This record gives sequence, structure tokens and C-alpha cells, in this order.
Amino acid sequence: MGDHLSRNRAIGRIKKRRERNISPETLYARIRSGDREGLSEAITIVERTLPEARGFAADLLSLCLHNTVHSRRIGITGVPGVGKSTFIECFGQSLIAAGHRVAVLAIDPSSTRTKGSILGDKTRMNELARNPNAFIRPSAASDTLGGVARATRESIMLCEAAGFDTIIVETVGVGQSETSVHGMVDFFLLLMLAGAGDELQGIKRGIMEMADAIFITKADGSNEAAAKRAANQYAAALHLFPPSETGWVPQVHTSSALNKTGFDTLHNTLSEFFELVETSGRKAENRIRQDLLWLDEALRHELLDRVENNPALNAEMALVRSQVMQRQVSPFAAAAQFINRLMQGGPLQ
Amino acid sequence: MGDHLSRNRAIGRIKKRRERNISPETLYARIRSGDREGLSEAITIVERTLPEARGFAADLLSLCLHNTVHSRRIGITGVPGVGKSTFIECFGQSLIAAGHRVAVLAIDPSSTRTKGSILGDKTRMNELARNPNAFIRPSAASDTLGGVARATRESIMLCEAAGFDTIIVETVGVGQSETSVHGMVDFFLLLMLAGAGDELQGIKRGIMEMADAIFITKADGSNEAAAKRAANQYAAALHLFPPSETGWVPQVHTSSALNKTGFDTLHNTLSEFFELVETSGRKAENRIRQDLLWLDEALRHELLDRVENNPALNAEMALVRSQVMQRQVSPFAAAAQFINRLMQGGPLQ
Repeated sequence: MGDHLSRNRAIGRIKKRRERNISPETLYARIRSGDREGLSEAITIVERTLPEARGFAADLLSLCLHNTVHSRRIGITGVPGVGKSTFIECFGQSLIAAGHRVAVLAIDPSSTRTKGSILGDKTRMNELARNPNAFIRPSAASDTLGGVARATRESIMLCEAAGFDTIIVETVGVGQSETSVHGMVDFFLLLMLAGAGDELQGIKRGIMEMADAIFITKADGSNEAAAKRAANQYAAALHLFPPSETGWVPQVHTSSALNKTGFDTLHNTLSEFFELVETSGRKAENRIRQDLLWLDEALRHELLDRVENNPALNAEMALVRSQVMQRQVSPFAAAAQFINRLMQGGPLQ
Repeated sequence: MGDHLSRNRAIGRIKKRRERNISPETLYARIRSGDREGLSEAITIVERTLPEARGFAADLLSLCLHNTVHSRRIGITGVPGVGKSTFIECFGQSLIAAGHRVAVLAIDPSSTRTKGSILGDKTRMNELARNPNAFIRPSAASDTLGGVARATRESIMLCEAAGFDTIIVETVGVGQSETSVHGMVDFFLLLMLAGAGDELQGIKRGIMEMADAIFITKADGSNEAAAKRAANQYAAALHLFPPSETGWVPQVHTSSALNKTGFDTLHNTLSEFFELVETSGRKAENRIRQDLLWLDEALRHELLDRVENNPALNAEMALVRSQVMQRQVSPFAAAAQFINRLMQGGPLQ
């Protein structure tokens, strides 16, 4: 009932937008002119899943497609408590001081359940939020990580169209979301704590090998020596691991938001990295590769969405899954049967 | 032309099989009775992609579904030169000496191109191949890694129905195939060389963190000390990395096929591992999770197969991909358009 009401309200808002004569073209012009409210409004539209909103978003995004090339997309992850917000607050300010315009977006797996958000509490990035050269946007609330990931990826394009040259995508290093973020950024930064026996438990296996850099945070006061030791250990460990295809060797450093140390190092690391991948063409190649992966993802999501919205097929899919779980049918036979049913009467018949 | 001929020949073979009155039920009975030729014939059938063969395979596999529970599935990977064949030859013999029946299958990414195979040269596992308690099968030749992976996964089920309690799946640690193998086994073993600066380059990023154990091979003669040192380094490095969800801590050891050392250690490692995951129920959980992932994979493959076999849709898919690559359309808009086209007239309309 509530869903139905809120759906009607959303359709109402979209109609009103039309009546107010807001077209993708006018909204695009506002975004390009630096109108922050226009950007916020556009992000709200790409976050919606209603077909009406998706159509508007597709038109809007097609206008943005060519504004993305010169940006730097940076993913930042780390478990709760590692100090992501203060790190991004400091790092963002130093980027702006160096002449950049910075947008911060978040992918928060918990928001898919609690409708909460890592960046919901904007006061955590007080200074940065007030800076005219920064744009901070809390994580989209959506029912699925796929939905949040799509909205975030489209928001990146909108921020780039709005003239932000550095896009930071923040996520918590405990769920599935890092893989999504890794698939939408050029550079992936992992924040860790020193001597983090227990904290380590929170980090998912596989994240380490995605990292282009690891920064040990809170390297100040009595913690500084431990942070340096941890950095050395991780550097030695990463050295044993296979290098990435770009030839980039992951770097490990320490930082302190308290003493504002480590951020110059990060600037240098990023300069080196982007120098390497922009000269070699790897950045452009990587983005094309990412786009094609997103196309595959999107094809699957789009299809599954439609199956879910078709009660008969949705029930059949649930049945197929439970049959597979109970070993009544092999996954391959189940898939063939389901696709047969799906395609009845369609062009693949 | 050749393809057409070979397709006709294959259909001819399937018809002949029917005429000889071979049904999934009779072939299943032969497999269960320990008839090795029956098992080989069944694997040849699951390797085929023709609809006729797929139907027969689905019926056969549905009979095998309940014979899989008590097996141990072990993936073994490592770059060429690490000594996989001699390792498996020794390990297989020691498994048989301990009362096990061992099947060895291979996933070889190169076979999708060259139609060659890692295990094609059976003489490389001379002793094991002659042992009545071992069954060695070269990698399936297929046009796609997805096809080889499906055939291997179905072959595992056939081998288990034939009474093999230990299934070893071998792959080369340089392509995409390790992820496939990781998704079909209970335990994943990575073989490495000592002091392998150069060899390391061959291993793909991300494999390390999949490993439940790393064995440093060729730990004999003048190489023994270096192997021990390497094992210590890797053990220290893995200790810094997040533990797996099972609570299992990856082990690092050395082995020598020459001196037949390390294989008792591997037996103990496996006993510990399976004790842990069988008691906790994690093995069964993991297999269900794997089955559901394979269902998703299979749904996607099945759909893409049908798109590829439909000239109009295939051309449209190629167009969509090139538009995405040239930034003419966003991946999400492209996916929505393509699915619209795909579903014309079907039940999702």
C-alpha cells in the first residue's frame, strides 16, 4: 500500500517536472552551468527505478557521455573505524587547494537494508561540505546493491558533466560493494589500521589484491611507530603478490588526519599512477573494459528485473532455485528449461 | 563447411546411440557399475553442445545428482613449469595408497584456442593413468571457457557417480579458468616455485587470496633451502590477509615429487580442512552457493548462446557493444534497449 502510494507520488513528481517544462536538455544545461541544485535533482532522477524516470535518465546521460574523459575516479574503502570520513575530509581539502574540483559519492551496502547511509550524516565532512569546489552526496537508498551501484555509476557521469574533475567513491570494505566500486574507478585505495588483528576480520578476502595503494591511517602520537611497522609489513607482503596488468606496483604509506600528514604522498602517488596509465592508454582501455562489463551486468539486471516483475516467471524462477538447492535438477538443465519458458513466443523461438 | 560436416557426424553418432538402444538410464547403470568406457562415453556426451546431446546429458545428470555428497573436490593450479603433472602423479598415488579412488580432470584455457590440452599427453601421468583406482581425462576442447567449465563441472558429477571419492581439477594459473575452478571445488591448492620473481609475473592477481593452501614445489637438492624460505615468506604474507569465511587459515608447505616429500603433509592439511568444513556444514553450504552461482552463469550463457545463434539479434548485440565502446550510449540505456528488442512478443511484454 505504502509502496503504491510512494510510486504514485513519484510518478506525480515526474509529471510535474514535465509540466514545469524540465527536459533532459534543460537539466543538462543547468548542470553544465554549475547549478548544484540541478546536479542534485539529476542524481535523484538516476536513483529512481521507475520506467518513467529511467527514460528521462537515459536521455540526460546520453548528453553527458563525452564529458567524462579527463576526470580521475578514485575508490576509497576501509572498515568502519578506520577513519574514512576524516581522511576524505582532509584529502578533499588538499585536492581543492591544488586546484581540483571534488565530488564525493558513496556506495553503502548497509543502506540497501537500513536505508541509512555512510555519508548521510554530512556533518562528518563539515568543512568539505561547505566548500564551493566540493560536492558531497550521500549513498543512494535502493533495494539492491545492483541498484545502488548503477545509480552511483550514473552519478559519476553527472558530476563529471558538472565539471568535477576528481570523483571519490567511498565504500565500506566489508561487503560486496568494493567489487562494484573497483569496477567504476581508475584507482582503488584501501585504508587500514595498524596492528589490526581484530579489525582485519572485518575486511573481505580479495580486497587487498584490488588495491592500487594501501594507507595506514591514524599514524600519529603513540600509534605512529606501529603504523610505520604495519606499512612495512604490507609493502613486503604486496611485493610477493602478482603485479597488476598495468605494471603499477601498489604503494603502502601512512597518514594522519590529525597531523595532516600523508596527503602530499597520496597526491604524488596519484600523479605517478595517472601519468603511467594516461601515457600508456591503460586508463582509457580500462574504462572501455569497465563499460563493457557494466553492459553485461546491466543486461542481466534488466532481464532479472523484468522476470521479477512478472508474477508467473518470478514464481517459476523461485521454484527453479529451490530445485537446484535440493539437487532435484542440475543448474545447467534448470537454466535451459527456464530460458525456454522465457522465450516462448519471442524472437528467439 | 567442416563445421557443418562435423555437426552432421555428431548428430549421426547420437542417432546411432539411440539405435543401439543406449538410454540415459542404461548409460547411468554402466557408470554406476564401474564401467570406465561408459564413464568416458558419458563425459564425451556432456562435452557436446548440440541440443540433442544437451537433452541426453540433462537426463543422465539428473540421475547422478544424489551421488555427489561425500566426495572431496580439490582444485590445483600453478603456472607452467611448476610441476603440476608430477605433483598430481605423486599425490594421486598416495591418495590411492590411502584407499581413495581418484579422478583427475583439467580445465585448460589454451584448449579453447588451440584445441590442445594440459592432460592431453597422458604419458605425463604414466603410473597414475595405469592405476585401476584412477581415472584421468584430458581437458574438453570447446570454443569458450564457459563451455569447458560447464563440461568439467558435469564431468565431476559423472566421476562421483562412478564412485570416485576424490576429484582433482587441474588448471593453469594464468587465465580466467582459476575462478571457474574455484567455483566448482571444495579446496583450492596453489603450487608455486621458490624465488620465482619472473615466474610470479605469470600468475594472475587475485589467485593468492583464493588459495586454501600454497605448496612450494621442487623443494629438493640445492633448491630445498630456498623453498623453505619462500614458504615462510608466503606464510607471513598470508597471515596479514583476511581469513576466509570458513575460518580456515591457508597453510603454506613445501613438497618434492623427486623425494616424495610433502604429500603426507597435504593429506593432513586436507583432513583438517574437511573435518572443519564437514562438521560446520560449510562444505554443504558452499556447494549450494556454488550451484546457485552456476545457475546464474548458466542462465546468462544459455541466453547469450541463443542471441548468438540468432543473426539479427547477434548483429544488434555487436552494434550495441560498439556504441558503448564509442561512448554513444551508456551501458544501462543500451541494455534496456536491447532487452526490449529481445522480449518483443515474448511473455515479458
